[in-house]
Amino acid sequence: MTAAEKTDQSIPTDYEIAQSAETSHIADVVEPFGLLRDDLQLFGEHKAKVKLEAIERIREERTADGKLVLVTGMTPTPLGEGKTVTTVGLGQAFNQIDKNALVAIREPSLGPVFGVKGGAAGGGYSQVLPMEDINLHFTGDLHALTSAHNLIATMLDNHIKHGNELDIAVNWVNWPRAIDMNDRVLRETVIGLGGDVTGVPRQDGFILTAASELMAVLCLADGIDDLKERIARIIVAYDDDGDPITADDIGATGPAAILLKDALKPNVVQTIEGTPAFVHGGPFANIAHGTNSLIADEVAAHLSDYLITEAGFGSDLGAEKFMNIVCRFGEMEPDAVTLVASVRALKYHGQEMWPPDLDELEAEDVDAVEKGFENLDAHVSNLQQFGVPVVVALNRFPDDSDAEVDAVIDHCENELEVRVAESTVFSDGGEGGIDLAENLVDAAESESTFEPLYDVDASIKSKIETVATEIYGADGVEYHSDAEDDIERLTNLGFDEVPICMSKTFHSLSDDASQKGAPEGWTLEVNEIYPSAGAGFLVVLTADVLTLPGLPAEPAAAEMDLHSDGSVSGLF
Amino acid sequence: MTAAEKTDQSIPTDYEIAQSAETSHIADVVEPFGLLRDDLQLFGEHKAKVKLEAIERIREERTADGKLVLVTGMTPTPLGEGKTVTTVGLGQAFNQIDKNALVAIREPSLGPVFGVKGGAAGGGYSQVLPMEDINLHFTGDLHALTSAHNLIATMLDNHIKHGNELDIAVNWVNWPRAIDMNDRVLRETVIGLGGDVTGVPRQDGFILTAASELMAVLCLADGIDDLKERIARIIVAYDDDGDPITADDIGATGPAAILLKDALKPNVVQTIEGTPAFVHGGPFANIAHGTNSLIADEVAAHLSDYLITEAGFGSDLGAEKFMNIVCRFGEMEPDAVTLVASVRALKYHGQEMWPPDLDELEAEDVDAVEKGFENLDAHVSNLQQFGVPVVVALNRFPDDSDAEVDAVIDHCENELEVRVAESTVFSDGGEGGIDLAENLVDAAESESTFEPLYDVDASIKSKIETVATEIYGADGVEYHSDAEDDIERLTNLGFDEVPICMSKTFHSLSDDASQKGAPEGWTLEVNEIYPSAGAGFLVVLTADVLTLPGLPAEPAAAEMDLHSDGSVSGLF
Repeated sequence: MTAAEKTDQSIPTDYEIAQSAETSHIADVVEPFGLLRDDLQLFGEHKAKVKLEAIERIREERTADGKLVLVTGMTPTPLGEGKTVTTVGLGQAFNQIDKNALVAIREPSLGPVFGVKGGAAGGGYSQVLPMEDINLHFTGDLHALTSAHNLIATMLDNHIKHGNELDIAVNWVNWPRAIDMNDRVLRETVIGLGGDVTGVPRQDGFILTAASELMAVLCLADGIDDLKERIARIIVAYDDDGDPITADDIGATGPAAILLKDALKPNVVQTIEGTPAFVHGGPFANIAHGTNSLIADEVAAHLSDYLITEAGFGSDLGAEKFMNIVCRFGEMEPDAVTLVASVRALKYHGQEMWPPDLDELEAEDVDAVEKGFENLDAHVSNLQQFGVPVVVALNRFPDDSDAEVDAVIDHCENELEVRVAESTVFSDGGEGGIDLAENLVDAAESESTFEPLYDVDASIKSKIETVATEIYGADGVEYHSDAEDDIERLTNLGFDEVPICMSKTFHSLSDDASQKGAPEGWTLEVNEIYPSAGAGFLVVLTADVLTLPGLPAEPAAAEMDLHSDGSVSGLF
Repeated sequence: MTAAEKTDQSIPTDYEIAQSAETSHIADVVEPFGLLRDDLQLFGEHKAKVKLEAIERIREERTADGKLVLVTGMTPTPLGEGKTVTTVGLGQAFNQIDKNALVAIREPSLGPVFGVKGGAAGGGYSQVLPMEDINLHFTGDLHALTSAHNLIATMLDNHIKHGNELDIAVNWVNWPRAIDMNDRVLRETVIGLGGDVTGVPRQDGFILTAASELMAVLCLADGIDDLKERIARIIVAYDDDGDPITADDIGATGPAAILLKDALKPNVVQTIEGTPAFVHGGPFANIAHGTNSLIADEVAAHLSDYLITEAGFGSDLGAEKFMNIVCRFGEMEPDAVTLVASVRALKYHGQEMWPPDLDELEAEDVDAVEKGFENLDAHVSNLQQFGVPVVVALNRFPDDSDAEVDAVIDHCENELEVRVAESTVFSDGGEGGIDLAENLVDAAESESTFEPLYDVDASIKSKIETVATEIYGADGVEYHSDAEDDIERLTNLGFDEVPICMSKTFHSLSDDASQKGAPEGWTLEVNEIYPSAGAGFLVVLTADVLTLPGLPAEPAAAEMDLHSDGSVSGLF
């Protein structure tokens, strides 16, 4: 739940809603969709993993081949415009209109829970339960990833200590350690101090577990064999000759896979209205592809008529990557896309507000809304380029005036000529999303002419330029000399014929966070390119990326408590 | 399973035995002991946590008040002499002779699994299942502890960064970070590099999660309120005036407790013969008390006629702490103790072997066995000092000759006049422990005059001297000047009237690892004393303690693999 959503005093808190919700045994929730009790590895009564044998069976049976609805958004304010809540609410809405639908979303990371308030399991009457568990240890996937990531790091330094037979260049190690905690002092460290007994001192750091390449690997693997192949080819360092050293070279494939054998299985829980929701995997949406696991998408699509899934940030990031990377790897095609917009975000663009001061956006300002359309329009056009029908979802907040809302509807219907619907799933649950769901059914039944935007065998520069000019609206691309070197080296290593994963600010369509709307007349600056060989793409950095956040001066943690009866407070 | 045990080719591997074992649903396993299905929080079919509400009910009902049998050992070889296997086997043996018995043991830590081979869930036909899960992520307790530990560390550094209102002395932080991985390069680090954005650089390090004071806290807490009180008083640093800064001072009590709310609930699994086994908590046996959780002991004792539980290392460490710390806190009294001995360990002492070369101990050597009795005798006498009846358990290995075994039996019966029994539970399961079990029943029904060895309100020095002279056999104690300062400071702070937790090598009864048998004419050297205020004891260091092990040159991890069908190899 975002702070703005909390201003509506008529709605109880997410935690209160979650506590008062009636839930069923997860086996009963999924049974109508064809998952049997024996298909589940239960974690209590409300959480389960789907066994890999069941996934094999589902693949063979393919009783359904659900239409794929992607949820993305316009360039958001820092609070987000409600993509997850829309995704969860849409799943509920589809089932209310008797369309057999499943939801697939990312699983939250533990670290951020203690920082700035805000759960990551939807909100209000469109959330997934048990939200408390989902936001804490859940089924242990993040912990398994942290362990597997750090085992690889340990084995690497252990190899260096015990003779360094592979001639690993100590200053060219590309595998930091991982922690699922917003612990900024671990960003840059020196390790291996204490003399000869502990090994070779070197500079290193920690990243958040969600930023680990293993997370991207887990979210793209289609089974155990693929998981192992992907782990095996992860580049963890380079040797003195500049040749890659892989996780397999240091013997880490098998033990890392063992640590991930349960994490690979998709988790299933229920929404507040009893719609089954897959909540599995949560890669970063800048240095990785930012969508839940492919294996969850696949299972859900085979069990339902509609799969509603979400991509991180705006259409320039999560959706672009979903179309160009995930759909390519998973051989999927979206049948419709819904673009979440909000009056708040439109005003934020219209007022060209930077830095953001969201309290200032509460007053009615139809002019600003209209000026903000250029951002919305750019996102609609981005999505249409992929040949997929678009429905704008106006996530209505309590403070939005009718005049503001009408302006948006009118603009979409009459100027953009695109489908549009208001959504009030936060306060009304599935019922608040019925209009949107009906529009999406209509869109998904229309012709989709989906195609990725570039060929993987195009040159690295050509792929970057396609995304920069056609999605971001840049005039062109400028490469720093390091990036030029990277391109040459990666091309020589044969790593050029893979999709690219752009790392760019989500605060703007451009690479400058302060630029709102649809910036024109600018050039994208590329600083560095490195391979995520396990994931199977190249990461293109356009700025420094913060892979380990910190806590604010007054962290959310400070207000949390566990009570004698086992209930918690301050968690959301 | 230890390497020596593996030399018996007639017995399949632990993993093979585990795979071929017939297991029941955990709810069916515990039902005869009075635990209902609703009392359990299930993790699949074979693992469960006991809900806190159920524990309350069991406390009120107290349908049984089982006799407490402690398993300890003589000074072991580095491979261990089979305490866990004896504990598990004894549980099975008691049930074979129709004594209603439960087992309580420590839960393994993930890190060491990848280092030197050797599971920590018993072995052969006396192991707990599913061994694979138990040795990996199990029910997530270790991960929860790692997270809670590191949350406290994060909040501490975050406090320092954001103004340091509490005047925390940056060079007097006593809360390293924790990791459940044998990653030696993290022992000594510099953190907080990268300039003003990341905070204050300082020297720090990591410890293994099992060495965290939080682990000791979890293993001593009797419920949520006690858990919170203990977390609250943990000393994480000192301020510029030398006054303690607690976890509560930095606001970490509530969020750390939230992270531990499930970890607090005891885990229950089954042995290979279907005896329920509580596997919960695993604190270090040097800087902490080294026994499974008190809450598991309490629940198990209330549900059975006999509770078989284990303490780490020899009688000088785990058992001394169990009697002087755990029994005091838990208001428990052991009814009998079994002291695990082996021909191998007796020869190791008799040959005064250091460093250990265990292959040399395979040949028959009755003389060495007899020379080794002085170590066994000292342990028997240690235990008898507490007023508890002792039964020596000779854990028979395949290579032991009859002459060697007879010498031990004869010595115990005729010279020590103590109960003794052979045990072959590794290869024979419960049946191999029936003689031992019958001796323990007999012992437990005899008079126990249990009393801890010292009063908690004695001075710090008096308590240390009692343990040093009466348990270790030292002539006296010598305090380094730092330790003298610590004693003065801790006495002034009012931390003197608590039990002491001695940290000493487990390789010898003395503080010198190379001294075998029962060393005489030596003085215990005390280097440092610090409070584990959350646990409620003072840690007395007699040497450097390795709180973060490393991997060997050929780690067990390198031989592990996950196969397409989900099975694992190389894990044990």
